[in-house]
Parts: sequence; C-alpha cells; structure tokens
Amino acid sequence: MKKNQSLHAYIKEELLNRIKTLEYKKGDKIPTEHELCEDFGVSRTTVRGALDQLKLEGYLIRQQGKGTYVAEKKVSQILTSTVDKYIKQIELQGKEGHITLLSIKVIPANEILQQSLDVSLNDPVQRIERVRKANDAPTQYEIAYIPWDIAPGITQTHAETSLYESLLNDFGVHVALTNEYMEITLADEIASRNLECELGSPCFYIETIAKNEKGVKVEFSRSYFRGDKTNFMIERKYPYSE
Amino acid sequence: MKKNQSLHAYIKEELLNRIKTLEYKKGDKIPTEHELCEDFGVSRTTVRGALDQLKLEGYLIRQQGKGTYVAEKKVSQILTSTVDKYIKQIELQGKEGHITLLSIKVIPANEILQQSLDVSLNDPVQRIERVRKANDAPTQYEIAYIPWDIAPGITQTHAETSLYESLLNDFGVHVALTNEYMEITLADEIASRNLECELGSPCFYIETIAKNEKGVKVEFSRSYFRGDKTNFMIERKYPYSE
Repeated sequence: MKKNQSLHAYIKEELLNRIKTLEYKKGDKIPTEHELCEDFGVSRTTVRGALDQLKLEGYLIRQQGKGTYVAEKKVSQILTSTVDKYIKQIELQGKEGHITLLSIKVIPANEILQQSLDVSLNDPVQRIERVRKANDAPTQYEIAYIPWDIAPGITQTHAETSLYESLLNDFGVHVALTNEYMEITLADEIASRNLECELGSPCFYIETIAKNEKGVKVEFSRSYFRGDKTNFMIERKYPYSE
Repeated sequence: MKKNQSLHAYIKEELLNRIKTLEYKKGDKIPTEHELCEDFGVSRTTVRGALDQLKLEGYLIRQQGKGTYVAEKKVSQILTSTVDKYIKQIELQGKEGHITLLSIKVIPANEILQQSLDVSLNDPVQRIERVRKANDAPTQYEIAYIPWDIAPGITQTHAETSLYESLLNDFGVHVALTNEYMEITLADEIASRNLECELGSPCFYIETIAKNEKGVKVEFSRSYFRGDKTNFMIERKYPYSE
C-alpha cells in the first residue's frame, strides 16, 4: 500500500492505526516528534504534518510544554431508531450529558419555516435554542422550531429534558418519523461561540423535520455538531427481497 | 433574531435562505458584491465574508471574471435501507452515475483488517479501490476490503457495477446488516487527488462493516465523500412503545 501513498499520509494512517488498535490509549502521551522521526525514519516536517492533521481531526491534543496526548473518544450519536434521549446516549459512553436552554421565544414564521413546518407566513412558532454538553464540553448547538398550535407554551423544563418526551407526555404529540438532512458546514460566529470551537472549523450540520403519525410536521430543527468531537453510528438492515 | 447574530452570519443565512427558497436558482448568477452591499446596507467586507463561506460550503461558485453563481445541488446519499445502488441513486437525481476501479489486489491482513474482518493476521484480503462520480465529478473515494475466502476472485466488472449485488449473485453472499461509523476528516493527499478537491478540505469519512445474515463479517470499507458536494438524507421511524 505504501508506495501509492505520500509519506505524510502514510505516517498519519500508521499513527491512527496505533490509536485504533489501542497501542496508544486515550489519555496516553505519545512519543515525541524526535522519537517518531527515528521510529519511521522520516523527517520532522513529515511527522509534524501527520500530527497536525490528527490534531485537527480531534484524535490528538497538544498540551503546551508537555507533549502530545491521545484525545478523549468522540461522542457517538446513534442514527437508528433512537428518540431524543441525548442524556442517556451520553451516559452509556461514560460521560455526563447536559442540555442547556439558551433562549426560548415566539417568532412569526418566515418563508423557510412556512416551507418546513406547513404553517402560514407570520404564524406563531416557538424558537428553542439549546446547547448539549458531554462532560461540560459543548458537542451540539441546536435551534428547534415548533408551531405554537402543536404544543402551546413549551417551558424551560421541557427544553432541558427531552423535547420529544415532553411533546408526547405533556402535549400528546407523538414524533413518529423524522427526515434528517446532513451536510458539512463551517462554524460561523454563533456556532463557534456556542460550541467553543474556532471560527470556520468543520461541523456536522443537520436539519430535521419531525412528523407525527398522521404526517403532520411538528418540529423543524437545525443542529451543529463539533466535527472534532462527534461521530455518527448508523446501523442498516437489508431485507433479502425488495 | 438579528440582534444576537453577527452581521456576517446574518447575511450568510439570508443568502442561504434565498437559495433554499429558490429565489436564487441553480445556475443563476447572483447579484454583484456591490449590489448586495446596497441591498443589505452593509460593507463589502461583510458581504465578501458571507459569500466566501457559502463558496466553501459548496452553495456558490465563483467564475473568474464572470461573477458568482448558485452551484449544482449536492449529491444526496440516502442512509436508510438502501443497498449499494449508487448508480440508481444518482440517476434519480438527474445525474449520470459512474464507478471507476482504480486498483484491485490481494494483500495480507494487517491488525486493523484482523479486527474489522475477523480474519487472521496475513490472511489474504482483496483490496478494492474505487472512485464514484456523478456527471463526471468525483463524489466518493472508497477502499473496500473483502476476505479472499468470502468471495474469491472479485473482478473489475464486479467492482464497477454494484459490489453488494455481485456478492449476492456471483458468490451467494447476502449483506444483511451494515454498521457505519461516520466522522469529518480533512482530505489528505490521496483523497484530495482522487476527489479532485483541495488538500485539507473537509470530507465525510465513513467506515463500514458489512455482515451476512449469520453475522459473519464480509466487508470492511473506508469511504471519503467531498463535503462540498455531498449530503446525507436519513429517515427514522419511532415506534410508540420501546
């Protein structure tokens, strides 16, 4: 494989393999640049390039004056038949999950909300802005829009536990289906402030439209996930015939 | 909403809304920087910042000496119960899909393959390197690993049509379940060359482990998708009780 690859990409992959096979474990200090140069028989520039990329991708962390360490595992989001149980998902990964409400207000529907929620222009829509954290580090910044008529008077308590559970228990609204649209975006000022990441750093961006069992749109949301802190797990089953 | 947002992010969102509501359509030339400054009553720096970000995210394209245009729609990948029907998925989006085989060879299993495919170290594994294109523009670069014993002698024809269909039809192997792991990566030399994108540009990176109906691992793959050219659609259904 080696001969088709540039040296820098090859070293990066070798280091990543060492992290994935747990040769370098979470929290471990990895060998110095000098030691890696000797180990691989390559120049300092090559090693540094590989290390820089692994830092950008969230696998390694540089501690000033101390060395380079293997980062905490990324927070996994499971994309199959899971309801909005953020806190439980995070707890399963041995971290403490927390949802913070930033703002909640009623706004008149604009054209995008009109399209996304099947409401009329200027209809009242609740705008709920939240940050989700794992072990106090923000991983997700989300703006949810819920038509007033669907669930009048959503409170801070609803927003800081599970919104989907609150919709069901307090408003009798069952989210039966979601359509999500995912792309990569670069953190703008608002996202970078709320996710505590650098301006322009790559993030997952997900737009979700949630429907009840009758196909009525009950929620539209926009979420930003830190690219260096998040991964998604997707499980798919394929029937024999279709 | 405006007062909480920086001007630059606000202008970007306004322009994105115009693209999404089809005020600016695919292939349209959008107003000049000067016209946008007048329209929004903001400085050229602000407008330029917003335009630059939309270009990086793949919504706008700058044509030297001509102006700024709305880009082609991104290629959608559907993440729910779809088998490997890349060409059909692309055709449904009105584009021509094409799979090109870059290399196919047999390699000895390393530690990562040992873990990912439940084979022994140095067992023969077929390494299949492919690029997928939509309308001749590369969208996905993929390296698939299939143990020799699972499907001995995979050919170029297998690799350039649908690998999962070939596994079923020619080797009697039914891919029943896939587990995918998705994160954001930055294009390294190999990915940027094969995806014809700039070094370091953000890409979706997906690792997939495919199993047959008995739970035997039949394929492991690594895929890179151009971030500015790809989005993912995910449909999820939630049962009432769980």
